[in-house]
This record gives sequence, structure tokens and C-alpha cells, in this order.
Amino acid sequence: MDRSMETVDGGPTSDVPAGAVVELLGVLAYAELTAFDRLAEDSRMAPTLAGRAAVARMAAAEMGHHARLSARLHELGVEPTAAMAPFTAALDAFHDGTRPSSWLEGLVKAYVGDGLAADFYREVAAFLPAPDRALVEEVLDDTGHAGFAVREVRAAIVADPAVAGRLALWGRRLVGEALTRSQAVIAEHDALAELITTGTGDLAGVGELLGRITRAHSERMRALGLNP
Amino acid sequence: MDRSMETVDGGPTSDVPAGAVVELLGVLAYAELTAFDRLAEDSRMAPTLAGRAAVARMAAAEMGHHARLSARLHELGVEPTAAMAPFTAALDAFHDGTRPSSWLEGLVKAYVGDGLAADFYREVAAFLPAPDRALVEEVLDDTGHAGFAVREVRAAIVADPAVAGRLALWGRRLVGEALTRSQAVIAEHDALAELITTGTGDLAGVGELLGRITRAHSERMRALGLNP
Repeated sequence: MDRSMETVDGGPTSDVPAGAVVELLGVLAYAELTAFDRLAEDSRMAPTLAGRAAVARMAAAEMGHHARLSARLHELGVEPTAAMAPFTAALDAFHDGTRPSSWLEGLVKAYVGDGLAADFYREVAAFLPAPDRALVEEVLDDTGHAGFAVREVRAAIVADPAVAGRLALWGRRLVGEALTRSQAVIAEHDALAELITTGTGDLAGVGELLGRITRAHSERMRALGLNP
Repeated sequence: MDRSMETVDGGPTSDVPAGAVVELLGVLAYAELTAFDRLAEDSRMAPTLAGRAAVARMAAAEMGHHARLSARLHELGVEPTAAMAPFTAALDAFHDGTRPSSWLEGLVKAYVGDGLAADFYREVAAFLPAPDRALVEEVLDDTGHAGFAVREVRAAIVADPAVAGRLALWGRRLVGEALTRSQAVIAEHDALAELITTGTGDLAGVGELLGRITRAHSERMRALGLNP
């Protein structure tokens, strides 16, 4: 991060344009709504009633986050639907292009896909003023996906090692789609693009950000027992 | 209610069999899970992003209730999945038989169907000891269905009066299916059946209970602008 942007406490100054805050909260609010939608759909593929209830609870937690982001947007004088609207097409296209065909693919997507997205939002939120940075970090807190998905996927691989290869391919497809789609979203939204450029400082900074995100992705794949 | 069952504070004594409490909390826990599921599905039919978010928030609230009921079942030493399992077939059959084909049918089902179910559970919960009675009343609190559904359905009827006739037929079909299915559920679950028989006192008591439930149903239909 460009040191000149920092205040004494290490946080960025408030010269971040309000447009960038609204864009980040808007894309995140819609991301939570689609996460809800997708987890609700995945819960129907659960092989057990306990698994179904567990994934339904995660879906509900996403709506709790969505409500917090909507409330903040209202505070900023912006209708949440207006803030979300510019991002619906791109996020819907991502989800339509990566529709899980099984319970395990759904879990890998929830863990690997949401983990990747959360890392990205967290990196960008680091450039925001304190209250919004804290809000983004709070709503990105793990809603229980992690432990649950890791347990279920590892158990499935133990039962049938052949699934590991297929799920590893699926994980790579997810990360590819996610990176392509997010570059397109950033390119289309000036305030967000400027926030990232200014925040990272220069191209080397952008490279480091991407490096951190892909390393964390590889760790998550390994945690599932999958080859990154 | 048979007066001899009441304590000084007007609540039933604790001679209610534990099996009946577990059966009622179990059926209700599964009802909340299916309500979540169904509202999540309905939210995708929303004509606006605001409507979609509103229904998704209602779905999330149902999972909050589900979590409270599951926690109570754990306290009673019963696995929630074990308590829910005996009711999944009947509730799934009800929902499969009354799948809304439009956004408005979904709203009528959420308001009229859930209202009817809530009235029934509340009537039965009145026969339970205080802590469980209070829990059931709490989880049956309106999660915002009512006002939202009434506004949307009334606005749709103003825009196109012809929908009122079709939705009224749909409402009557819902109540018919609900009564048939719930009679079957009660007949199959001895503890629940005995709780209702003892609680209402006699056949006249059962008749009064059904009378209260159908009167409340008619009021809800009228609130939507529909002929009961």
C-alpha cells in the first residue's frame, strides 16, 4: 500500500471517494444475496437431513451479512438495490457458469470460491476508511463453511479417492472463472478500479495482491485434500 | 381446554408426555426448514431485486427459528434430525402437492399456508408446559410475511382484477391440502394425537379448535382481497 495514504493508526485517510465505498458495499451485498441463493439450492442436494440443515444455516448467515451491508448503504443515503444493480449481470454470469452438479461440487464452490472472493474483498476493504473496513471484515467472517466443507470433502475422498481428481479440476475451473469475471467487473467500475490502483500503489502492488490471493487459494485446495 | 389440566397461572401442568413435546418441536423444526427452502425458491421468482431480498430475509428468519428449536431438542437430549425424520415425508408431500407456479401464488402460500400452520401449532402448544409453549409462540412470530404479502397481492389485484379469482381458488386448494395432510400426520403420531385429545377435552373441543383455525384463515384471505 502507498504509505502516503496511511494515517498514524495505519488506516487509510478518508480521501477515498464515496463512490468506491458504495461500489464495494454494493457488489458485496449482491454477492451475499447470491451466496444465500446458491447455498439454499445446494442444501437440497444434501445426502442427509443434518447436512441439509447445516447448509441452510450457512445460507441464512449470508442474509444476516446482506442485511448489515444494506443498512450501511441506507446510512450512506444509497438504496441497496441501486448499489447492487450494476453487479447483478456479472455475478449471475459467474454463478450460471459454475453451477455445481453435485453436493461435493457445491461444497468445494462454497469453500474455495467464497474463500477466494472473501480474500479479494478483504484486500480491497483495507483501502477503505475504518468503519466500512470493519464492516466488510465482519461480514466476511466465516459462517461455518470452512470446517463443514473440509470435513465432508475429506470424508468423501477417503470413501472414494477417485473423486479427488474431478474435484481438483472443478476447483481450478472455479478460480479461472472467478479471476476472469472479477477483472471484467473492476474494468467496468471506475471508482473501484481507482481504489485498487491507488491502494496497491503500482503494478507491482497489484501483482503482490494477486500473489497473496492465489497462495491462499492453493492452501484451501490442499486443506480439502485436493491438488491446487 | 379441560380445566383440570391447568395450574394456578393458567398453564397446563407438566404431566404432558415428553414424547408429545418432542413430536411437536420436531414437526415444527422440519416445517421451518421446509419454509426456508420454499421461500428461498420463491425469492428467485421475484419481479424486483427488492422483492427478492425481502423474501430471502424471510427465509433466513425461518432458519433462526429452526436453530432455536434444534437447540431445545438438544437440551431435551434428542437429536434434531431424529425428531424431524418422522415428519419429512408428510411435509414434503404437502409442498410437492402445492408448488406455487408464480410469484403471487408463492406469496399467498407464504401468508395463508404459513398462517394456517402457525395457528394450528399455537393451538397445540397451548397444551405444553411453559418453556416449550413460550418457545413455540416465539418461533411462530411473524417474520414479515404478512405485511409484505398483503401489500404485493393487493397491488397485483388492483393492477389486474382477474388474478383475484385464480388466487382465491389457490388459497382454497392450500387449505384443503393442509387440513388433509395434518389429519394424517396426527393420526400417525400417538403422543401428538393424545396431546390434542386431552388438551381439547372432547370432540366438541376439537371442533372449536378447527372453527378458530378456519375463521382465522378466512380473515387472512379477506386481508389479501380474496374471497375465502
